[in-house]
Amino acid sequence: MLTLGFDPGVATIGFGFVDSNGGKMIPMRYGAIRTSAGLSLSTRLASIYQDAVELIDTFKPDAVAVEELFSNVNVKTCIAVAHARGVLLLAGQKCGVPLYEYTPLQVKQAVTGYGRADKKQVMEMVKRLLNLEKIPRPDDAADALAIAICHARTATSLLIGQEFNICSTI
Amino acid sequence: MLTLGFDPGVATIGFGFVDSNGGKMIPMRYGAIRTSAGLSLSTRLASIYQDAVELIDTFKPDAVAVEELFSNVNVKTCIAVAHARGVLLLAGQKCGVPLYEYTPLQVKQAVTGYGRADKKQVMEMVKRLLNLEKIPRPDDAADALAIAICHARTATSLLIGQEFNICSTI
Repeated sequence: MLTLGFDPGVATIGFGFVDSNGGKMIPMRYGAIRTSAGLSLSTRLASIYQDAVELIDTFKPDAVAVEELFSNVNVKTCIAVAHARGVLLLAGQKCGVPLYEYTPLQVKQAVTGYGRADKKQVMEMVKRLLNLEKIPRPDDAADALAIAICHARTATSLLIGQEFNICSTI
Repeated sequence: MLTLGFDPGVATIGFGFVDSNGGKMIPMRYGAIRTSAGLSLSTRLASIYQDAVELIDTFKPDAVAVEELFSNVNVKTCIAVAHARGVLLLAGQKCGVPLYEYTPLQVKQAVTGYGRADKKQVMEMVKRLLNLEKIPRPDDAADALAIAICHARTATSLLIGQEFNICSTI
């Protein structure tokens, strides 16, 4: 199963493909979509949408996993990121790929086994689980790989009878 | 100049077209795009996007005006609405229509002449300015018409040398 993870943002959107087969996970392409601060928000959203569609059309993932947003850091930033997240969900939907959403706690839990793990621990586990020599850069790409790993592990759990989360409704 | 105003939401997205010529404003089509709470967020976003593109493609407005979001009411709702707002901005951008954003204060100021006007006062002025017999329903449509009026008036002000707001960057 090929999972594309997205770490939503406006300036930098991390992405990472993880191919999983049982417990084995192989990182495929990963990196970041970037938009320039000098452009209007709508132009940046169009650019994010186009790049996301291109990634999905080119590599044809079986699932797209996107982290949920929480407003406990900076509400203004969170609202801006939600615009971009809407566009990422739209890209997955328009391409006909099943979409999955995970909370940061679920991602940490799935990757490190500990819901309160810090960023460094998550990064280290991403490197270890994917047999990489170094922690992927930029951080947004590593975060996206963590989200993809979360889905790969959760989907595997499903196969042995556990429930997993699909796109929530509002 | 034909302006399409959008009042963003996830369940109900108000829209309203206002044709303006100098100080004269004529309401054209108005109403609401609706999505069902039983659907996934991504499905709802795709539906909003499709309907918005259809409205723009069919009626070919010269401008799309969308209200800015503020988090002073309910942060969780605001984040959800921002997903839909991102998709509305994307629709305008993909259709090649100039996009304009206004704060609620700017809308109230432009419609009633008073930035702290209440909802009822704004609705009443929308009815009066557009020579309507009744206040448009649903409220979301009236709000969308108010946003379109705001743009029509602001753009007219521009013609006599005042500055107006274009899409802000983050």
